[in-house]
Amino acid sequence: MIEFSENEKLKRKIYKIIFEADTPAGKLFDVVLIWSILLSVALVVVESVHEYHEKYQIFFIAGEWLFTILFTLEYILRIYVIRRKTAYIFSFFGVVDLMAILPTYISLLFPGTHYLMVIRILRLMRVFRVFKLSGYLTEATILRKALLASSRKILVFLSSIAVLVVVIGAIMYVIEGPEYGFKDIPTSIYWAVVTLTTVGYGDISPQTGVGQFFASVVMVLGYAIIAVPTGIMTVELSAIQRKKSIPTTKVCPECMQEGHDGDAKFCKYCGHKFIND
Amino acid sequence: MIEFSENEKLKRKIYKIIFEADTPAGKLFDVVLIWSILLSVALVVVESVHEYHEKYQIFFIAGEWLFTILFTLEYILRIYVIRRKTAYIFSFFGVVDLMAILPTYISLLFPGTHYLMVIRILRLMRVFRVFKLSGYLTEATILRKALLASSRKILVFLSSIAVLVVVIGAIMYVIEGPEYGFKDIPTSIYWAVVTLTTVGYGDISPQTGVGQFFASVVMVLGYAIIAVPTGIMTVELSAIQRKKSIPTTKVCPECMQEGHDGDAKFCKYCGHKFIND
Amino acid sequence: MIEFSENEKLKRKIYKIIFEADTPAGKLFDVVLIWSILLSVALVVVESVHEYHEKYQIFFIAGEWLFTILFTLEYILRIYVIRRKTAYIFSFFGVVDLMAILPTYISLLFPGTHYLMVIRILRLMRVFRVFKLSGYLTEATILRKALLASSRKILVFLSSIAVLVVVIGAIMYVIEGPEYGFKDIPTSIYWAVVTLTTVGYGDISPQTGVGQFFASVVMVLGYAIIAVPTGIMTVELSAIQRKKSIPTTKVCPECMQEGHDGDAKFCKYCGHKFIND
Amino acid sequence: MIEFSENEKLKRKIYKIIFEADTPAGKLFDVVLIWSILLSVALVVVESVHEYHEKYQIFFIAGEWLFTILFTLEYILRIYVIRRKTAYIFSFFGVVDLMAILPTYISLLFPGTHYLMVIRILRLMRVFRVFKLSGYLTEATILRKALLASSRKILVFLSSIAVLVVVIGAIMYVIEGPEYGFKDIPTSIYWAVVTLTTVGYGDISPQTGVGQFFASVVMVLGYAIIAVPTGIMTVELSAIQRKKSIPTTKVCPECMQEGHDGDAKFCKYCGHKFIND
Repeated sequence: MIEFSENEKLKRKIYKIIFEADTPAGKLFDVVLIWSILLSVALVVVESVHEYHEKYQIFFIAGEWLFTILFTLEYILRIYVIRRKTAYIFSFFGVVDLMAILPTYISLLFPGTHYLMVIRILRLMRVFRVFKLSGYLTEATILRKALLASSRKILVFLSSIAVLVVVIGAIMYVIEGPEYGFKDIPTSIYWAVVTLTTVGYGDISPQTGVGQFFASVVMVLGYAIIAVPTGIMTVELSAIQRKKSIPTTKVCPECMQEGHDGDAKFCKYCGHKFIND
Repeated sequence: MIEFSENEKLKRKIYKIIFEADTPAGKLFDVVLIWSILLSVALVVVESVHEYHEKYQIFFIAGEWLFTILFTLEYILRIYVIRRKTAYIFSFFGVVDLMAILPTYISLLFPGTHYLMVIRILRLMRVFRVFKLSGYLTEATILRKALLASSRKILVFLSSIAVLVVVIGAIMYVIEGPEYGFKDIPTSIYWAVVTLTTVGYGDISPQTGVGQFFASVVMVLGYAIIAVPTGIMTVELSAIQRKKSIPTTKVCPECMQEGHDGDAKFCKYCGHKFIND
Repeated sequence: MIEFSENEKLKRKIYKIIFEADTPAGKLFDVVLIWSILLSVALVVVESVHEYHEKYQIFFIAGEWLFTILFTLEYILRIYVIRRKTAYIFSFFGVVDLMAILPTYISLLFPGTHYLMVIRILRLMRVFRVFKLSGYLTEATILRKALLASSRKILVFLSSIAVLVVVIGAIMYVIEGPEYGFKDIPTSIYWAVVTLTTVGYGDISPQTGVGQFFASVVMVLGYAIIAVPTGIMTVELSAIQRKKSIPTTKVCPECMQEGHDGDAKFCKYCGHKFIND
Repeated sequence: MIEFSENEKLKRKIYKIIFEADTPAGKLFDVVLIWSILLSVALVVVESVHEYHEKYQIFFIAGEWLFTILFTLEYILRIYVIRRKTAYIFSFFGVVDLMAILPTYISLLFPGTHYLMVIRILRLMRVFRVFKLSGYLTEATILRKALLASSRKILVFLSSIAVLVVVIGAIMYVIEGPEYGFKDIPTSIYWAVVTLTTVGYGDISPQTGVGQFFASVVMVLGYAIIAVPTGIMTVELSAIQRKKSIPTTKVCPECMQEGHDGDAKFCKYCGHKFIND
């Protein structure tokens, strides 16, 4: 059927614009999308400021509906043109896309729900989709790979930290006690996290001599163990970098030697010409 | 004797459940144990909160006794099934296991001992035993190895820091003096630790121009020397990783020595020619 | 024309003094220049102190004019002796040089412009020009190269941080709310930056239990992700160092291509056999 | 002369005890010395605490004189037994040794000099002499070497930081101004250091929206550039470590191949036996 084929062609065209960034139209779409996301999030942020909230209320409501309708159209188009519809809808970005439009509709049914604000902010995560299209893919991938590769080590590290702060918190609660702001163990654990991570708000701080001594030990400890995640991350990043620059899987078919660079056209050991794939 | 053998069989079975994690029963035991530990610690933490302490006192006492009896049973079983009983009792985890149950019994004799709380919290360290069984052993081992390998360097670093904070504290005490919160040298040393580790509570901070200038120098110093433990840790971790990744499994069939590079054609210790696979 | 040639000779002489540092006169010029810059900036810094401002007003005005006239003379000389005049004027250091003298003249037309102070401070950046001449060029270049090489990764990292602090700020605004100092989302975002970067002023800090728990998670997150830029920077610095140390000076005599490994026996680009020295 | 020889023998014996740590007497001397230093410093620290100062004044004076006489005896002995007396007296540790005893004698002439306290604390640096003797020499040397090797890069880094904090301080002074605590540019520079190094006391913190935004940028900057010294240090430490473990200067005299390990007895490429030097 010709009519169906026409439909398919249109679908393809829209798909290329929305999901790819090679055509001028696709690039324009990405730029418009990214600005819409940033503006719609800026709207939520500015709306929370008391003085503006009162003054420009109409403006905020109008803007929110404008962006919601835009994002709804985009969402419908995405579902329309994509082949594996359910796969998209339940994918990470599918859920994020839906969450970007839902809060405004919900606010019609249940007016004044304060918590929807956070969900409206979460649409900022849609910005990351554009990374996937842009040239920054490699960099993002390297960082993600390094995080994934070191995730198990970091998990062990974090659970050790978790045990540590609970024990430190309990000790500090006994040393300082409620009279110096350490009113219960959860608060003391909060203080332990604030101190061990070298954040140091100072809303709770040790007052007794023993407490200050123990706190000093905790600080030096925190100062020293920050070396652990940094070391883990550096080693993983360096391993990925090395792997990227040296693809050692190439083997010379003549002398069977390995260790050739990715751009090598001749074996550096026997001079045999590589037939590149 | 058959009866004794039956006893031995039971011992073995219990041993496998308690000390290993390969059987379904062993895994279940581990999961129940870890949850019991976490819950019993959570109980101590929540109990310290004033409002809950009054309200649910009975609940806390009941819970504490429940977990204590459970852990006591576990402790007795562990001693019962293990062969080298004294070795276990005086091992690190043996002491931790005993300390997990002792405080509740002591509180019967001496009611209201505040300090027992910390000992009750220490049972959290029993969680680490499960690491030994789970698949995270490698990660934990690598981190521990790196820490051990760099422990001497870190000790030199820490003692330098200790000397530094005492000297900085004394100088700051003379510059600012008691009228600006630096009431004696121990307090000034505490300030030096807070500043050098970049924690920065702000409970004590320099007020005079000279003091603020000197404090700035200390901060930049602290900012720069955090590089030292990080560098040490990274190098150690990277050395461990490298050792792991470079195939040191090659063994010379002649002299049985290890540690050959991947591209070695002859044993570097005895000169035996390798027949490459 | 002899007269013109004399002029040219003078130009060359001044050029050597101003733009180079090999002659004794050139070195002296650099030392005088760097001290003039530091003194003139110190003047602005000290002038801002209220008590000195009143007392030594005449001294500050005289000093400012002295340095401005000196820098103006230098600026005119630079333009006079350089060949590609427009290239210099619109270069980075050309603009900085102009900005170093402009504020004082503008203050004649519009007296009391407070903001000119910052521009007067910016002349401090002229100090970096001397780095170019001194022996610290290599070190500065390595650091700049490492920063450039990792700039894309750091950009991805920073934009992830930007998204993160907005989302964290919004969540915290809903949790704590205006009654605990988190008066609007921009303020909450400011708190998120203060916390995630482990600065921790303590001017705003969570008061509710849920807020303190969430803040603890953010702190540990911030403590862990500082590993990312450190890892990136270390890997780049190490790559630059390695490139420097591994002799990539080998050039194929056949195809003139560089980048061969130290153990290469054949050119990896054209297959030419190397005659090893 | 025999008498002179006897004298020489005694000198040698004392030298061995004082300057070396191989004999039991030498080890005992080191242990006594280190404890004397630590105790004498602890005395100064505790003396500064107001309540103890009044109570135990006699005890502090007696202790101070005891340690001073001990250190004076030691100083005289050191000069007596060493050959190159002036070299020792004007060496780093010679000056530190003198400074350890001078303050007490000066306090006889000028009673109540507050500043001598710092000089008395500086005797803590004598502890480092013992490092030289103990087995921690290697670790201390590696750290010192890495610091020295990276000192030029760190100098470039620190001077960039210095320029940065002055510029940031001036900008913040214009943005926030005296009404929000940024009372002059030196104070603003102090704030910039506190913020950039992620210390964050909170004694001065931005109050205006623009100031908080600018401060956020400074914080993220500080968070990111901490990567630079860490990267520098890691690369240097790693270079030193590598140099130690892989002496790649060994060349096989048979096949002229390099890259042999330090413990290799046979060439790993051709099997030629190395004649070790």
